[in-house]
Amino acid sequence: MKKVKVAVLGATGMIGQRFIQMLEGHPYFEMEGLYASERSDGKKLADVLKVRDHDYVPETLEMTMETMDISEVAKRARVAFVGLPSDLAGPTETQLAESGVAVFTNAGAHRMDPDVPILIPEINPGHLEMVKAQKSYGNGGFIVANANCSTTGAALPLAAIEKAFGLNEVYISTYQALSGAGYPGVPSLDAVGNVVPYIGGEEEKVETELAKILGNAGPDGFEYAKFGVFANCARVPVIDGHMEALVIKTGKKATVDAVVDALEKFAGPPQELGLPSAPEAPIVVRREQNRPQPALDSFAGGTGRSRGMSVSVGRVREKDGRIKLFLLSHNTLRGGSGGSVLNAELALRRKYL
Amino acid sequence: MKKVKVAVLGATGMIGQRFIQMLEGHPYFEMEGLYASERSDGKKLADVLKVRDHDYVPETLEMTMETMDISEVAKRARVAFVGLPSDLAGPTETQLAESGVAVFTNAGAHRMDPDVPILIPEINPGHLEMVKAQKSYGNGGFIVANANCSTTGAALPLAAIEKAFGLNEVYISTYQALSGAGYPGVPSLDAVGNVVPYIGGEEEKVETELAKILGNAGPDGFEYAKFGVFANCARVPVIDGHMEALVIKTGKKATVDAVVDALEKFAGPPQELGLPSAPEAPIVVRREQNRPQPALDSFAGGTGRSRGMSVSVGRVREKDGRIKLFLLSHNTLRGGSGGSVLNAELALRRKYL
Amino acid sequence: MKKVKVAVLGATGMIGQRFIQMLEGHPYFEMEGLYASERSDGKKLADVLKVRDHDYVPETLEMTMETMDISEVAKRARVAFVGLPSDLAGPTETQLAESGVAVFTNAGAHRMDPDVPILIPEINPGHLEMVKAQKSYGNGGFIVANANCSTTGAALPLAAIEKAFGLNEVYISTYQALSGAGYPGVPSLDAVGNVVPYIGGEEEKVETELAKILGNAGPDGFEYAKFGVFANCARVPVIDGHMEALVIKTGKKATVDAVVDALEKFAGPPQELGLPSAPEAPIVVRREQNRPQPALDSFAGGTGRSRGMSVSVGRVREKDGRIKLFLLSHNTLRGGSGGSVLNAELALRRKYL
Amino acid sequence: MKKVKVAVLGATGMIGQRFIQMLEGHPYFEMEGLYASERSDGKKLADVLKVRDHDYVPETLEMTMETMDISEVAKRARVAFVGLPSDLAGPTETQLAESGVAVFTNAGAHRMDPDVPILIPEINPGHLEMVKAQKSYGNGGFIVANANCSTTGAALPLAAIEKAFGLNEVYISTYQALSGAGYPGVPSLDAVGNVVPYIGGEEEKVETELAKILGNAGPDGFEYAKFGVFANCARVPVIDGHMEALVIKTGKKATVDAVVDALEKFAGPPQELGLPSAPEAPIVVRREQNRPQPALDSFAGGTGRSRGMSVSVGRVREKDGRIKLFLLSHNTLRGGSGGSVLNAELALRRKYL
Repeated sequence: MKKVKVAVLGATGMIGQRFIQMLEGHPYFEMEGLYASERSDGKKLADVLKVRDHDYVPETLEMTMETMDISEVAKRARVAFVGLPSDLAGPTETQLAESGVAVFTNAGAHRMDPDVPILIPEINPGHLEMVKAQKSYGNGGFIVANANCSTTGAALPLAAIEKAFGLNEVYISTYQALSGAGYPGVPSLDAVGNVVPYIGGEEEKVETELAKILGNAGPDGFEYAKFGVFANCARVPVIDGHMEALVIKTGKKATVDAVVDALEKFAGPPQELGLPSAPEAPIVVRREQNRPQPALDSFAGGTGRSRGMSVSVGRVREKDGRIKLFLLSHNTLRGGSGGSVLNAELALRRKYL
Repeated sequence: MKKVKVAVLGATGMIGQRFIQMLEGHPYFEMEGLYASERSDGKKLADVLKVRDHDYVPETLEMTMETMDISEVAKRARVAFVGLPSDLAGPTETQLAESGVAVFTNAGAHRMDPDVPILIPEINPGHLEMVKAQKSYGNGGFIVANANCSTTGAALPLAAIEKAFGLNEVYISTYQALSGAGYPGVPSLDAVGNVVPYIGGEEEKVETELAKILGNAGPDGFEYAKFGVFANCARVPVIDGHMEALVIKTGKKATVDAVVDALEKFAGPPQELGLPSAPEAPIVVRREQNRPQPALDSFAGGTGRSRGMSVSVGRVREKDGRIKLFLLSHNTLRGGSGGSVLNAELALRRKYL
Repeated sequence: MKKVKVAVLGATGMIGQRFIQMLEGHPYFEMEGLYASERSDGKKLADVLKVRDHDYVPETLEMTMETMDISEVAKRARVAFVGLPSDLAGPTETQLAESGVAVFTNAGAHRMDPDVPILIPEINPGHLEMVKAQKSYGNGGFIVANANCSTTGAALPLAAIEKAFGLNEVYISTYQALSGAGYPGVPSLDAVGNVVPYIGGEEEKVETELAKILGNAGPDGFEYAKFGVFANCARVPVIDGHMEALVIKTGKKATVDAVVDALEKFAGPPQELGLPSAPEAPIVVRREQNRPQPALDSFAGGTGRSRGMSVSVGRVREKDGRIKLFLLSHNTLRGGSGGSVLNAELALRRKYL
Repeated sequence: MKKVKVAVLGATGMIGQRFIQMLEGHPYFEMEGLYASERSDGKKLADVLKVRDHDYVPETLEMTMETMDISEVAKRARVAFVGLPSDLAGPTETQLAESGVAVFTNAGAHRMDPDVPILIPEINPGHLEMVKAQKSYGNGGFIVANANCSTTGAALPLAAIEKAFGLNEVYISTYQALSGAGYPGVPSLDAVGNVVPYIGGEEEKVETELAKILGNAGPDGFEYAKFGVFANCARVPVIDGHMEALVIKTGKKATVDAVVDALEKFAGPPQELGLPSAPEAPIVVRREQNRPQPALDSFAGGTGRSRGMSVSVGRVREKDGRIKLFLLSHNTLRGGSGGSVLNAELALRRKYL
């Protein structure tokens, strides 16, 4: 199989560099260019590294940054992975799609557009079909978004529970990692020994995106799922891995055992098709009393390409008809670049590329 | 006024040392003895210091630890402040009360006893009357508990909201400080850069104690408040100050402005009587977008004796008929030793001592 | 006594705000204006607070920032306390001095100028006389610098040891706090769970400033002290308080007891004159096995105005004719704003103001 | 080749578990038993895991702990890897050696014995011959120690520099990771946002072991190298990776370039023989201005078995005839279990096993 040429936009940022990490030696995709602002033009990846846990292969470290240029990207790449700040991502993605590029983005700019799917392949693979409604772009161009990082972590277990029991209300509190704010991101004087109970726009994203992801997509557009979501979001001094505490009011009665069973059995096309970045189990349920923990479980999912692609769930409990649980997902892998790479893998296998 | 003699039990521990800090130069109380296990007998406070933020006065640092002995305590002190582990506290407190000592305890052993009040003077000062039901003790002996640390932080704002709007359901997630586990407490390998989503017994305490505190006390015992409480408790790498994220379903409709108003106006006997450890405002509402924060607000309450005695509330929001907010309280001051000292101050002024 | 009017330059920064903290209610000085860049014009101190440990008095929090204007400062203030970045501080300080303002600066721009003293009042009070060599300024204008933060911490114990035993060589490794980099300063992704072995220009400052501070000042300018200094500087995840590990080769033989004695007896004009910000003991020697520690000892010096103005020394040991010790000083108090305030207090009492 | 049976002693501890990690699927060795105290008898590795970064293979996680029994170990294993506390290790190792077991230990009990080598295969492979002086053991039993964790990190670069330029004096300050104190180890209240300038016995170990390692071994025993070592040791809030700041007075003049060259060319039998745990380069020199850093470089050495086996050196500078540098090594891999596994690999290839 001939590999599809891809570009990484925003390659000097945290998300851009996770894209590069996940695309190194990818069986479907070949990195054709790393794009960033003019300031970084000509710099090697080695000189602008931000991701803290990774050993990149030497050849990748030698790749150089180029100044972003829409027509250049369109000429050289069929796919663009976007890790730009939202304000810049909005118009850039539109132009790329108009130029015939398939855009897989981590930015939030187009997520709530009426014809853009927020795709999580195990949950709503059918939403991918909505790219056909993005007619104006033509030439094969379209935009597919992954969900916001803390939305993604919650979406997978909630989808499993919704399918088995229905959902009435979900209460979510987040314990979000520092890498979610990029680099330089959160000042250390705000982070060390502290919790900051505010992340701009985050609560709104969690509350609105879940309804779109778990809803239906059809000829008339998206039909949103109808359940209440109430989110409180905070930043904690952790490098990678968003923890979330949930209380869930299900539609029909759910026991702890039945919930665990539903979570562990949950799977979808990524597992059926054996997509390269798919973890064996999208949801891993921990039985220990004090798990999951960012220090131990952020990279759950497997080794290699699927590392950090599973959501870990623990402490599933029941009280007065509600299910309580903690979950953890890697915010820049499954909840960021990994999510979009998985989306692109599905799109390719389903012939959208 | 002649000062009342008091003993501190568990004086080598985190809570014991906060008792000592709050009792230094106290206008009502005089420390007659610091008691600990045999192992520390004869050691100076200076040699067993654990509290990280405090400048004790030199004379206090010279005080020596004595081996705990019930009859000795009873002979020398009218009041015992207890900072012992729960299993040891249970029988010790019973014996002390039987010996005619007024026990003000931070331990959980007797909190849910049918005749022991969990006292928070601004909320349920009348519960103090329940000590008269503790007849078997005689000789002026009785037991008054403060609430668990994370319960206390939530109880004050919830009491204000309950009074103004009633309460239906409360969803609580905690971000708890390391000092809550005492010393040596949490291993640093579990704490640095990590979140641990489990604190033994904590969720049950929050869920049961709130109903007792906000309930009624009368000749027939305690009548528990009837609202649902759902708690998820986690430990974060912060030294002092428990943060909590709440979603509240009130009885009648509450606007953000009305909630803020109710919180800011909330006060009780400690403020009316000008108790030495009472903060001017038991609840401080922050208007900034990103407050309260442990690093900035844990010691809210004033300077001197009332430092760390206020609960800070921030980010009061409304969504679909629920109130969302974050709160922060100092877990070993208002939520620990400070709570019991305030209880004893009220007891003295109301002639229970 | 009529208070001297003073201005704080760089009032939105970490050092500027420590100046404000130390000048609140000062017996000699009265804050006449807080100056910052145009961007902050009109903002209240409360809106730009960066210092993490302080409860400012309410009136101070209401003070507003003004855009810096040399002639305005010169008109309103006799003294300027400067907390500007070095590149901006250089020309600004020159212009202020030319306008007749007495400049007490924390910036490094003029420290190595041949007529500017790096003043530490307990060590080299006579260096203050060098301001008379700054003739070109006229009108009472002059510049006095405090030492770099990690230089200050080392200088006090080294001065005591130099006086008693002479100095041949000093080996210094620093463990520097995050607040030394200002705000936003060090990105949290570089700080949490990490050590960064590089602080731009820091090693050079330590190596050159010590020789000037411990040298002589006379009609022919400064004569530098002659001993070798070798510094390695690193940043650690601590909020406040620079730790330093020293190995010292003294001129004549020094025992541990004699060194401790020399350190504890060390004092100077600030103590003799009872300057408002002077700690009772400029150097506090700890006997515990594991002190000083930033978490426990950064604020050594006393309460109130002298808090954080002592250097703590611990673990004084001898090996093969060298003295080994650890020291700790508060980098933005004694090692920053506090140093300059103490300098100004000395200047006033010695009639330079 | 038939694999040699090995036992791991102290398998519930931090070092024991790094032994297990390095022995999984080892080409020379086969784990025959994991030994710990009676308390852990029958527990699975999965239930007592302490190491924070590792994905053990599932079969290993199922291995169970057995109560330590010397004769049982001697019966089943040719080699014992020891990760016991020093007081317990002393007599245990003697008995094992007397029973004919080849002991490779991380404990310090026998390090300074006159016939026990402190082996670092790139530096002093010939010291291994000293096991023949351990006659009393007989039956093939002997003891080989690895160096203390912070000694190891310094020893490799110092050996390279000694070989090229000779050594006169070495000044060392350490920034040591929390994992070096085992689990539970350092209390989080001492670690978060703090530096502790004391690690029991550490400075003495660094000062004495280096002279033995870099000395000669011959028929008359060890001849210690003659250069001064002056160490200050401190603990910082880092999980893995000991940083050290060095100032080195070489025997003959050394330029920065020549030092870098000597460091990069340094290698020994592990590299020549291609030992399974040998890194390609035992010393990696970083050119960046702010490296090495624990967060980025602790695992330098390669992937798989040699991960964490290189020492990283950075910021090589010269001042007044001294060389200054920072170094970083993984304290429980190269500086702990990895050191002993490499020692055993050398012993096997050189027919001591």
